Amino acid sequence: MSYSSFIPPQRTLMGPGPSDVSARVLSALARPTIGHLDPQFITMMDEVKGLLQYAFQTQNEYTIALSAPGSAGMEACFVNLVSAEDKVVVCRNGVFGARMIENVQRIGAELVVVDGEWGRAVDPQQLEDALKQHSDATVVAFVHAETSTGAKSDAKTLCQIAQQYDCLTIVDAVTSLGGIELKVDEWGIDAIYSGSQKCLSCVPGISPISFSDKAIDKLKARNVPVQSWFLDQSLVMGYWSGDGKRAYHHTAPVNSLYALHESLVMLHQEGLENSWRRHQRMHDLLATGLEALDLHFIVPAAERLPQLNAVTIPEQFDDAKIRSYLLNEFNLEIGAGLGQFAGKAWRIGLMGYAARKENVALCLTALQEAMQNT
Amino acid sequence: MSYSSFIPPQRTLMGPGPSDVSARVLSALARPTIGHLDPQFITMMDEVKGLLQYAFQTQNEYTIALSAPGSAGMEACFVNLVSAEDKVVVCRNGVFGARMIENVQRIGAELVVVDGEWGRAVDPQQLEDALKQHSDATVVAFVHAETSTGAKSDAKTLCQIAQQYDCLTIVDAVTSLGGIELKVDEWGIDAIYSGSQKCLSCVPGISPISFSDKAIDKLKARNVPVQSWFLDQSLVMGYWSGDGKRAYHHTAPVNSLYALHESLVMLHQEGLENSWRRHQRMHDLLATGLEALDLHFIVPAAERLPQLNAVTIPEQFDDAKIRSYLLNEFNLEIGAGLGQFAGKAWRIGLMGYAARKENVALCLTALQEAMQNT
Repeated sequence: MSYSSFIPPQRTLMGPGPSDVSARVLSALARPTIGHLDPQFITMMDEVKGLLQYAFQTQNEYTIALSAPGSAGMEACFVNLVSAEDKVVVCRNGVFGARMIENVQRIGAELVVVDGEWGRAVDPQQLEDALKQHSDATVVAFVHAETSTGAKSDAKTLCQIAQQYDCLTIVDAVTSLGGIELKVDEWGIDAIYSGSQKCLSCVPGISPISFSDKAIDKLKARNVPVQSWFLDQSLVMGYWSGDGKRAYHHTAPVNSLYALHESLVMLHQEGLENSWRRHQRMHDLLATGLEALDLHFIVPAAERLPQLNAVTIPEQFDDAKIRSYLLNEFNLEIGAGLGQFAGKAWRIGLMGYAARKENVALCLTALQEAMQNT
Repeated sequence: MSYSSFIPPQRTLMGPGPSDVSARVLSALARPTIGHLDPQFITMMDEVKGLLQYAFQTQNEYTIALSAPGSAGMEACFVNLVSAEDKVVVCRNGVFGARMIENVQRIGAELVVVDGEWGRAVDPQQLEDALKQHSDATVVAFVHAETSTGAKSDAKTLCQIAQQYDCLTIVDAVTSLGGIELKVDEWGIDAIYSGSQKCLSCVPGISPISFSDKAIDKLKARNVPVQSWFLDQSLVMGYWSGDGKRAYHHTAPVNSLYALHESLVMLHQEGLENSWRRHQRMHDLLATGLEALDLHFIVPAAERLPQLNAVTIPEQFDDAKIRSYLLNEFNLEIGAGLGQFAGKAWRIGLMGYAARKENVALCLTALQEAMQNT
């Protein structure tokens, strides 16, 4: 067997993530590796913390980049803040709410599921009804931006309700961070996780997370150790926090953190609100074009994520053929449907660096040609 | 607060990892990101599997790159293959054996510890005695190359003993893979994990793992779900295995896998045995130089890892001052002691791309100057 270097094609990434990564971020990624305890690396880590606090709009001291993808970020929130004694209300309106349920089950906590329609926001009234019925619930978890459907939930209202019932909140912001309004402190979110490869337009593999002081207190008061050693934030804390000396826990993904740093510097330079506005503007352009192609959104306008556009595949088209055509003819990736929507929807991402006019134009032109020629 | 791009210094990395990453690997890392379900990416993943089979010397079908660091690779082996019903014998002769114990405890399995001296190989007789006493043990776990001490254990013999007592074996090869002889199939290892940032000289953040058919059978026969969703290999399998179509589990760290692929291509081109020999040759050179500087090895010659050289810090020297001098004057990183050896040892890595004559020369010259001037 003989092997040679892998030279990937140059794609335009308009699926559900990874999104387009800019040359600036790729170039940061390739800078020389230094040690994970090098004083200069620790200085950079502190900047990553500050930049993530800005992106999350939080003063939470414990705001870090987890050394694994968003799914591990989700698990980190659950295994650190939930134990078998807890009763957890999970709102499920797509694949990622369902994944939260799996996390709760593997911890052995009591579970209450608030089931909503796929393609719609979580219904605050349903959450309130569940909490009235289960007044002993201790945690509420929901997905801010459901990547599987393109629906945006009203995180602010959901958190308000959770707080009225004295519950800690765990929020999935994998697809929302940097793309739509998200205010961790103002909304009272206790634990939040995201992914590097969505609206931050960094390479995949890192999960920004942030815990409120209330969450940290709960973690510190645990009677039973966190069931994951790798994700135990009471240990990871010794590496990401503290003045000067940092304790070794695991070897941080040094180069990926260079890239995350750069993508966050870019977000800071653009300004968070400007980034939110840009995602909305590009969505408006794309939406107009998609409707003109007779492609219709699954999610009602008021509940749509600008960065993840799920449209119903018209019956006359073959899902896989169209996506292959886009990939082979235009080097353009759009996303397939997931879960209930497999084969029934396309998911068109406009995330981070991919939310540009040239991408919108390419996508509309390519889709039109693909639908004519397949 | 204002932020700008982070430009790291150019270091020579001769600590316990990350090791020097070549320009060739960094350049692969920075290639354009493509989707984690892109057909071309899946082709590359298949090559990574083949290359890892070569590096591990195994035909195990389930040989993949886990999307997280070596500590997560360790946890993946334990949480998938051990449950509360198991009785696990862990050999501890350094920090990483101790970490294995923490993994077993968090699973709630019964634990038998075979405690050995730090800086020495695991004693096969001690393992055999423990297995005689605990004939109901189901799993034996040990560290092939203890990064915290520089000691190499006789993995072949330890596995033979484990098999005589009908135990599954879990082996830590974080520091050994690519640097010293390692033959997964010939030695009968059932589950093994490594790290990208040691003798493969790839960027940190990825953990190559391999499970034997016996291990896979045990995983498939579980009554209780794996306690980690992210590390559940019965789910991850759907993404790394199967002809053609791959199921989404999490978003793979695309660019880090480009880099791993490239580092494995380089290993394949050099030849595994040649790489083992190069590590040994560079160690011999370094060892002669260190003894000339009156720096003495902690580990007896027959049990030494060529790629991780732990020497006792002579009493007249200040550990931190010397290491700072090396870093500031020569951009050279060597490792501090860990655990019992904190403040008492230096750990000088000769891993992968760092195992070159120019590095040996630099290290000896720089150490000599540092010891004269601090």
